[in-house]
Amino acid sequence: MEIDRLLEGDTRTLAQAISAIETRQPGTGDLIQELFARRAGAGSPSTQIVGLTGPPGSGKSTLADTLTMLWRAQGRRVAVLAVDPNSPFTGGAILGDRVRMQRHALDRGVFIRSMGARGHLGGVALATRGAVRLLTALGWEMVLVETVGVGQSELEICEIADSVVVVTTPAAGDGVQVIKAGITEIADLFAVNKADLAGADRVVRELRDLVRAPREEGVWRVPVIPTVAATGAEGVAELAVALDQHRAHLVATGAQQSRVERRLRDEVVELVGAAATDFARRLLADPELKLLPEDVQSANPEQAAEAILRRLAAEESKIEAANRDPAVDHRRSE
Amino acid sequence: MEIDRLLEGDTRTLAQAISAIETRQPGTGDLIQELFARRAGAGSPSTQIVGLTGPPGSGKSTLADTLTMLWRAQGRRVAVLAVDPNSPFTGGAILGDRVRMQRHALDRGVFIRSMGARGHLGGVALATRGAVRLLTALGWEMVLVETVGVGQSELEICEIADSVVVVTTPAAGDGVQVIKAGITEIADLFAVNKADLAGADRVVRELRDLVRAPREEGVWRVPVIPTVAATGAEGVAELAVALDQHRAHLVATGAQQSRVERRLRDEVVELVGAAATDFARRLLADPELKLLPEDVQSANPEQAAEAILRRLAAEESKIEAANRDPAVDHRRSE
Repeated sequence: MEIDRLLEGDTRTLAQAISAIETRQPGTGDLIQELFARRAGAGSPSTQIVGLTGPPGSGKSTLADTLTMLWRAQGRRVAVLAVDPNSPFTGGAILGDRVRMQRHALDRGVFIRSMGARGHLGGVALATRGAVRLLTALGWEMVLVETVGVGQSELEICEIADSVVVVTTPAAGDGVQVIKAGITEIADLFAVNKADLAGADRVVRELRDLVRAPREEGVWRVPVIPTVAATGAEGVAELAVALDQHRAHLVATGAQQSRVERRLRDEVVELVGAAATDFARRLLADPELKLLPEDVQSANPEQAAEAILRRLAAEESKIEAANRDPAVDHRRSE
Repeated sequence: MEIDRLLEGDTRTLAQAISAIETRQPGTGDLIQELFARRAGAGSPSTQIVGLTGPPGSGKSTLADTLTMLWRAQGRRVAVLAVDPNSPFTGGAILGDRVRMQRHALDRGVFIRSMGARGHLGGVALATRGAVRLLTALGWEMVLVETVGVGQSELEICEIADSVVVVTTPAAGDGVQVIKAGITEIADLFAVNKADLAGADRVVRELRDLVRAPREEGVWRVPVIPTVAATGAEGVAELAVALDQHRAHLVATGAQQSRVERRLRDEVVELVGAAATDFARRLLADPELKLLPEDVQSANPEQAAEAILRRLAAEESKIEAANRDPAVDHRRSE
């Protein structure tokens, strides 16, 4: 059974289950629910979801790798989801990740997966939500969601994380770029990577000024941590400690629970939106239906949208009727 | 009547109609359809939608202003939609636009409007699509969609345009930044603004190398045009000519028609998605419905999404039944 293999920690089955989530195969929700139920005896899951974002070339992957080794030394299992909203590649097709995967190939406590935009609706953010929930259900201690770039999509992906680390460097423009992109608001921690380069002190100082918060009970003071991920763990150990502190802060203030709830609501909303837009694209592609007139100038998109929603309604009623019959779950019988 | 005032060119009514689109009030689709029908005798609409994007500080607004003056001198009416996906402000609240609006305050041939993210679902891209269609129905010759920044949202907004101008400058990093952001693929034209600065020649040369296309029939060769928008029309007249050429190219190759059709389909899909996600958020916020269990770990987002889609179906059936009664259109009777 798929579920047993997942609970045994079989990496291939895990990768297949994430592919099923990415392609939105039915039944993945049930699967995860069952996993949570089966593991309920193992105590409450304590997965920490860490988002890692920053401009290209800031050394996010190297930092992720160093953090992974550090957490492995502490006996935590680490799943890394490398998310590139602009890449059509998935399943470890990114070159850098292949190299990383080989390094950890014999370690069943490390799982690395590239999540690319498949061109399907709902997109990479929704797929990543599902993958994170699956890994949580399986009790992985650390899930590191690493993004490429600092655009709007990356901000969205950060909403998935408990703790967001924004990585910057002393390189020209990077500090300013971070501020420009409005990314400071989402940072729970800053890592100034390549801190051995000239100008690192200035960037650290500027960022500390930027995030200065009152020394009050219940207020998280965003730490700015210089790191040199490439040459080992300089600063990275401190970053790992700060991440544990942020986790403790979230739990103590109740923010952890409300973040989990908000994520769940957002996922439901995105699932509904993806189902509806998928349906709309399918209907619009059907030449028989003629939802839009040939003379596009006379078209009324609102009317067409309403017609599609009515058809969706009719379809849902049919599905509901069908569900009253005992149905066979083909997916899991393999 | 609203529709008469719109056809008379009343700016205030136009601004109100765009607000109605932004807040997704029902009936805006009918209104635009009616406008198209009323103006059918005036010949086929020939609105050119120009997207203007690039990093902050590249001088997009100044360039937009210079283009506006140039097109006005040619007797074309110009609508500028300044889109900031990250700003909560709308309706001309951006300071720079207020200044611009004053300059053109007495010219009924210029309409300037800030479109901000209102926090409502569907977002600024969908609202901008609607506004563009309204302006097209009213026969505005030029619609300039100007974005702030170069993120994913800006790329989305560019999909609305017939011709996308990517603005860059010789300033450190800007050239590289453009390439990084993957924005070259969406550029129909490049403007290297602030071309009086040192390094402009190099940036122009680099971009020309980057966009080099075969000299073939039916292939658009992306022009790279140095401009100095601040000191007048240096290069801007050339940019305007290139925009007209791009328009002619689109019409000649049939791409114009297929772009209009694709935009229409995309708008319908987004409307369906926005309606569905709005509905989902409303239902999830209702504590009575208990769509998600208090123990979030045992939740099944897929099941919740399906429950919402079924409720949406029930709701749509009710609306359909209600629509069979003769209904009064309150919106337009004011």
